[in-house]
Amino acid sequence: MDTMKAVVYRGKEQLGLVDRPMPKILAPEDAIVRVTRSTICSSDLHILHGSVPRAKEGVILGHEFVGVVTQVGTGVKKCRVGERVAVNVETFCGDCFYCRRGFVNNCEKGGWELGCRIDGCQAEFVRVPLADQGLHPIPDTVSDEDALLVGDVLSTGYWAAQIGEIEPASTVAVLGAGPTGLCTMMCARLYSPACIVAIDVNDERLSLARANGLCDIALNPARDDVEARLQALTEGRGADRVFEVAGAKDTFEMAWRIARPSAIVVLVALYPEAQSLPLHLMYGKNLTFKTGGVHANACGDILRLIEAGRLDTSCLLTHRAPLNDVLTGYRTFESMRDGCIKWVITPYER
Amino acid sequence: MDTMKAVVYRGKEQLGLVDRPMPKILAPEDAIVRVTRSTICSSDLHILHGSVPRAKEGVILGHEFVGVVTQVGTGVKKCRVGERVAVNVETFCGDCFYCRRGFVNNCEKGGWELGCRIDGCQAEFVRVPLADQGLHPIPDTVSDEDALLVGDVLSTGYWAAQIGEIEPASTVAVLGAGPTGLCTMMCARLYSPACIVAIDVNDERLSLARANGLCDIALNPARDDVEARLQALTEGRGADRVFEVAGAKDTFEMAWRIARPSAIVVLVALYPEAQSLPLHLMYGKNLTFKTGGVHANACGDILRLIEAGRLDTSCLLTHRAPLNDVLTGYRTFESMRDGCIKWVITPYER
Amino acid sequence: MDTMKAVVYRGKEQLGLVDRPMPKILAPEDAIVRVTRSTICSSDLHILHGSVPRAKEGVILGHEFVGVVTQVGTGVKKCRVGERVAVNVETFCGDCFYCRRGFVNNCEKGGWELGCRIDGCQAEFVRVPLADQGLHPIPDTVSDEDALLVGDVLSTGYWAAQIGEIEPASTVAVLGAGPTGLCTMMCARLYSPACIVAIDVNDERLSLARANGLCDIALNPARDDVEARLQALTEGRGADRVFEVAGAKDTFEMAWRIARPSAIVVLVALYPEAQSLPLHLMYGKNLTFKTGGVHANACGDILRLIEAGRLDTSCLLTHRAPLNDVLTGYRTFESMRDGCIKWVITPYER
Amino acid sequence: MDTMKAVVYRGKEQLGLVDRPMPKILAPEDAIVRVTRSTICSSDLHILHGSVPRAKEGVILGHEFVGVVTQVGTGVKKCRVGERVAVNVETFCGDCFYCRRGFVNNCEKGGWELGCRIDGCQAEFVRVPLADQGLHPIPDTVSDEDALLVGDVLSTGYWAAQIGEIEPASTVAVLGAGPTGLCTMMCARLYSPACIVAIDVNDERLSLARANGLCDIALNPARDDVEARLQALTEGRGADRVFEVAGAKDTFEMAWRIARPSAIVVLVALYPEAQSLPLHLMYGKNLTFKTGGVHANACGDILRLIEAGRLDTSCLLTHRAPLNDVLTGYRTFESMRDGCIKWVITPYER
Repeated sequence: MDTMKAVVYRGKEQLGLVDRPMPKILAPEDAIVRVTRSTICSSDLHILHGSVPRAKEGVILGHEFVGVVTQVGTGVKKCRVGERVAVNVETFCGDCFYCRRGFVNNCEKGGWELGCRIDGCQAEFVRVPLADQGLHPIPDTVSDEDALLVGDVLSTGYWAAQIGEIEPASTVAVLGAGPTGLCTMMCARLYSPACIVAIDVNDERLSLARANGLCDIALNPARDDVEARLQALTEGRGADRVFEVAGAKDTFEMAWRIARPSAIVVLVALYPEAQSLPLHLMYGKNLTFKTGGVHANACGDILRLIEAGRLDTSCLLTHRAPLNDVLTGYRTFESMRDGCIKWVITPYER
Repeated sequence: MDTMKAVVYRGKEQLGLVDRPMPKILAPEDAIVRVTRSTICSSDLHILHGSVPRAKEGVILGHEFVGVVTQVGTGVKKCRVGERVAVNVETFCGDCFYCRRGFVNNCEKGGWELGCRIDGCQAEFVRVPLADQGLHPIPDTVSDEDALLVGDVLSTGYWAAQIGEIEPASTVAVLGAGPTGLCTMMCARLYSPACIVAIDVNDERLSLARANGLCDIALNPARDDVEARLQALTEGRGADRVFEVAGAKDTFEMAWRIARPSAIVVLVALYPEAQSLPLHLMYGKNLTFKTGGVHANACGDILRLIEAGRLDTSCLLTHRAPLNDVLTGYRTFESMRDGCIKWVITPYER
Repeated sequence: MDTMKAVVYRGKEQLGLVDRPMPKILAPEDAIVRVTRSTICSSDLHILHGSVPRAKEGVILGHEFVGVVTQVGTGVKKCRVGERVAVNVETFCGDCFYCRRGFVNNCEKGGWELGCRIDGCQAEFVRVPLADQGLHPIPDTVSDEDALLVGDVLSTGYWAAQIGEIEPASTVAVLGAGPTGLCTMMCARLYSPACIVAIDVNDERLSLARANGLCDIALNPARDDVEARLQALTEGRGADRVFEVAGAKDTFEMAWRIARPSAIVVLVALYPEAQSLPLHLMYGKNLTFKTGGVHANACGDILRLIEAGRLDTSCLLTHRAPLNDVLTGYRTFESMRDGCIKWVITPYER
Repeated sequence: MDTMKAVVYRGKEQLGLVDRPMPKILAPEDAIVRVTRSTICSSDLHILHGSVPRAKEGVILGHEFVGVVTQVGTGVKKCRVGERVAVNVETFCGDCFYCRRGFVNNCEKGGWELGCRIDGCQAEFVRVPLADQGLHPIPDTVSDEDALLVGDVLSTGYWAAQIGEIEPASTVAVLGAGPTGLCTMMCARLYSPACIVAIDVNDERLSLARANGLCDIALNPARDDVEARLQALTEGRGADRVFEVAGAKDTFEMAWRIARPSAIVVLVALYPEAQSLPLHLMYGKNLTFKTGGVHANACGDILRLIEAGRLDTSCLLTHRAPLNDVLTGYRTFESMRDGCIKWVITPYER
């Protein structure tokens, strides 16, 4: 077999499921992975709509997946052919100034490459550079689908919760109950706050969060006075930690308003434009804002927590179809139709 | 009523349930609390056996309890008469060098006083000094028994887990599955280790720990090669964190042996004699040992976690009888007869 | 003597040196302090220009001072009459949710009161509420002037350096070489960065910073390409920590531009208007922004460091005159004439 | 030239300066370094006296040195031939479980190898394994001698001070004013304690510490009541941090006795036998003990601090002679004759 099926980005709003040559080892640290499960992610939509200038036309999309290693370069030391692996969205060296400090998103040699600047995983096979850093063996007792979100959206929630420095018995507010928001709630739970408050305008997603124990209280700003409710929950203070994972109009402002003085506000959302930071209005609040993209260097720990039953993303995997149907998947995922949270792509059926 | 029933320590191995005068406010910061539930604690046994030299003969024993405030001094600002309260084992000022740093066990004006150097809670009423620091209102949805261990043994587990700096996905070993060990496991769980290993020679207690989800794996050194089992669980490294809550012969040595290099070992146990610290044998292990008694300054947080359903000590409350039967209680508790973990003392019945 | 001289704020741009009644103890926790040295601070100018809405007309200005205790209320436990004291700009209780966490600027009973909402220190005497928290004895070997800035501007630099989490051998950039900026450099030095870069448009102030060892490198944006220079100093990365103490046009943007990925940016400056936070332009930089006003709870430590010769603000005290000349002082301080950094007010001369 | 001069350990108490073959690259990650300066270290004496069982007979001694890279293996990515380098005493991979957490002393592939289990630096040339981790370029403005102690004794002091979590304005006690103790004081200074107290029985060394500003107060237990003096300095509390770098009889006990409650005690010293840990005597002190050997992963930072003038070990380099005189050096260093702190070995003179 010389070719494979792949989802190619051909420029703004142009997507195709086409034949492409099989990937090959290009550098000694590369591995080739046969994709067993992948997803559609909001970032894929951002590329499709032309709002990720660094994305290359002609690239195969997709960056969240699991698979089986089929080939490794001569410089690969840890991964072995035949291993089931979760794959890190980020390409990083593990040895530069940033990587040594755990800031792998700032790696001097990497960052987000797969499905953006180099061919990604919405395909049958994919080449993964710096494979020893990027590939993580999936424990035998963990299924492919249980590990599917490890490399991207679950890593993001894990990183957000971690930099949020959540303390036991605290009150945590999460704005946005999409895939990343739900993962953030799930990972915030690892630190045992007394109360997680989910905030979204989508009641269906709020219900899912409640039903799966991801939050304790669900608020819809279309209906609830979020600031007042948070104060009522905290003797008038506001949330101890706020995670802004919505990136919607006004959610940035809601984030700092519902935070108590000396709170930490983690800004996980991507905003298309500059936000207004009225420090004079929040003077005396002494807020800390943490910004940026996931430092995805905890995949091993996340897999261990999945194995131990402490993390479980199965409630997010609402839809599932072979690569053949991926274009339907893009439409369903974007429209959130049928309660779609995550669209899982299974292998191409010939 | 001028007198009340109380358990008095009359010197080594001498205990009596006797009539004593009702306690009175002695200082403006005092409160009087009517005891609704109290317990027998291992420390009471230590006093009884004469191994706590600072304990005063003639003192009313007992330091773990909840009750209702019946009277407050003129300098009490926060507590109100009629309030149901959990009571901190430690008496502290909240304002000295140590208290301002959270080291309330080292308070220049306090420490462990109740039931040791001043009259304690195995009685109908008790005077609590520095009441604004020591008394914590119990939320309406939390029962007296749910809050009973907050001030002492649960605070100890909470403090131990906190200074243990447990990281998500790590492996935690707890030596000793008595009341404090079980509380330590419960509180370690708040930090989401992947695996909690309970170690004890008492299979009944190990079973209780497993059955209530307090541990993931239970080992009995009489049967299991604990060091080898820990290594097998951790790719040969050993436990990331070790809590020594047994204080038995050889458990100190087991604690540092089962720890991986650069682990934290928390020594919660009380040892009657000096331990041998063979640093030359553990050179290159780079262990951190944390020692001492609980800084019990998190009662409010603990109560919030109980209210939120994140902490639940009900499985420890195995026995229950009125103050009338307290001497039977001492015998049963010490002998661990009938699976006794905690003996709960209910009010005296006339 | 029933009256004293005092500087009174009579409304926007209106200032007077007038006779006012001597202050009296109003609450048991109050103390009366005879002012031996005070200063004019930028915040006084902000009040004068009407940009501090919470300031009360008719209030005596001034909040940075040292003095001698002349009277204490019945509830004062630590301060003694006759003691020389440094005075904290902030009024706080030491016991509320925030104070117990060290967030005294958010105290439920306090905040910045002196010289803003209650009578301040540009006077002969001043009433200090919650005196046990606000007054700090000056060690015998420390002069009044050496301790003069402890309670406000030096506390601010100390707090900024502390929340900046400066690591040894790092590169620190401080925007603004006014009194607070200079104190920030001085306190940053306590954490032993390899290089402190001072940035200001005022060459005289940069020279002072260099001459007194407060910085290693001085840059003037009117002349230097600050971003390029920072990169050159750090192998292309940017500053590890940035302190924005200027609050000038464009300094907010310069702050995040000169920061390396995953840096901490401390925003000490007061901005009269909202700043633009273009997160999409800094995506992948993973910056942490810390904002707000000083939690001034380290006066004791600061005094110890002054006593030990590790902090020395004498180079900031450029001007000195009795209270009689305070109106000249306001003009000189605001215009920065004659190299004025700090205008010290000595006692009124009759 | 096929052979070189080298100091060989031939078994207990047997040392020789002999001819040995030139070292060769054995693995792709190796480098060969021409030694320009090396030292004699206490650990060399321990080997010589037979108290380091893991040391191999026939090995070339020495592990503290600087030099020039003369050859690199094919797998070396960062070091270049001709570079002046400081060399890390520890051999580590940078990628295992421990290295990724900064615990390089526990590296699965390394630890202390040079001059113990593989040939060391008291020679003209030395082979350094895993050279990319072990070699650090010396900045142009830093001399060989200024960088000489970076890899071992200064790394040890730096690590000790770091894990000591020293806070500004605190009181630090250092037991032992030998080379490591002096480096510990120097590095403790980086965190700006208010007071460093040096404790030793050797007045000459105490004088050197004082004269070079490494300590503020010097105490000799032969003359001073160390515990009482520490209490007097700290309002009766004891030292906030204690570093035990003496390893003498009774210094372990002195370490915990002079520590205040809730202090951190760093045990840097090597003890030939087990120490007694009487936890019952220190109950309520809540001490933390940190033990083990240096995680020497900060050489780059240390070199930057030397370059910036914040660290300077020149006062330790008391003696200096070519490799020809190394046997005299061993005798002088061990006897501390002529105030010998460090004996510097310069190149062999033919």
